[in-house]
Amino acid sequence: MKALMISADRFEDTELLVPLYRLQEERIAVDIAALQEGPITGLHGYRVAANRALENVDPAAYDLLLLPGGKAPAALREHAAALALAGHFFEERKPVAAICHGPQILAAADVLQGMQVTCVASVAAEVEAAGADYVDREVVVDANLITSRTPDDLPAFLRETMRAIRP
Amino acid sequence: MKALMISADRFEDTELLVPLYRLQEERIAVDIAALQEGPITGLHGYRVAANRALENVDPAAYDLLLLPGGKAPAALREHAAALALAGHFFEERKPVAAICHGPQILAAADVLQGMQVTCVASVAAEVEAAGADYVDREVVVDANLITSRTPDDLPAFLRETMRAIRP
Repeated sequence: MKALMISADRFEDTELLVPLYRLQEERIAVDIAALQEGPITGLHGYRVAANRALENVDPAAYDLLLLPGGKAPAALREHAAALALAGHFFEERKPVAAICHGPQILAAADVLQGMQVTCVASVAAEVEAAGADYVDREVVVDANLITSRTPDDLPAFLRETMRAIRP
Repeated sequence: MKALMISADRFEDTELLVPLYRLQEERIAVDIAALQEGPITGLHGYRVAANRALENVDPAAYDLLLLPGGKAPAALREHAAALALAGHFFEERKPVAAICHGPQILAAADVLQGMQVTCVASVAAEVEAAGADYVDREVVVDANLITSRTPDDLPAFLRETMRAIRP
């Protein structure tokens, strides 16, 4: 079991750190991919080491894709490598967990058609424009996709994410 | 199962939020006690609602005491109510989990005599002066007490904390 997180500077700190620590608690290896390898800094000032550059990631090596929010997803969706990674997880029906602004990457990757999805309220129109059915709920699970709205939803988000990857 | 966290302004944000969300993931009720009821603000700017004032807390109502770090413990240890709460958990041998500067409260409450403990390096001399055996390790479990050093230890800290309270 190996997890991949994709993020960038200006991530929402708890939306990256809480899932990271939760996966590590279960002794699950987590790689963090960013535009380049090296430190990224959250909106609240936490620094995290990205140990992969997006372009060098082999998505076949991972069993879970986790997309934190903040301002990072709006930067990441401009990069074809990020969209291709997301596409791989949907083609292979592997679990994808996205919170807050994280679903912006999925909307840009055009993988939300017909999916039930939640996200931060300001992103609702974007996921609907991508063909998703937006609902305002702490966590929504539809097939391989787990979505939540804000940091306060992290307990429900991780409850469903851990359930999805439990052997 | 009910958990109590004691904190104050200038808490280390992840050391409060990551355990809070982890406990809530397990549907464990968590009360947060501070010097007074109302919002407290972390070193990185996160605001959390303290729903109890220290003086009104009945420690018998709780099965776990969790002490985040940051600058909060140095303020809390000046208050007899915080020390009495800590004392109760040791008398009753109920689980206590303290991270980073959190053990400062336990040192002031004089409950560390003969205990093996870790904490942030800058607090090592204080816990030793209180009679503890300080070790530099990601997590230390001694009887009812679980201690860790820094936010990066949160996965190990929560692995042991969840183990201690699992029915």
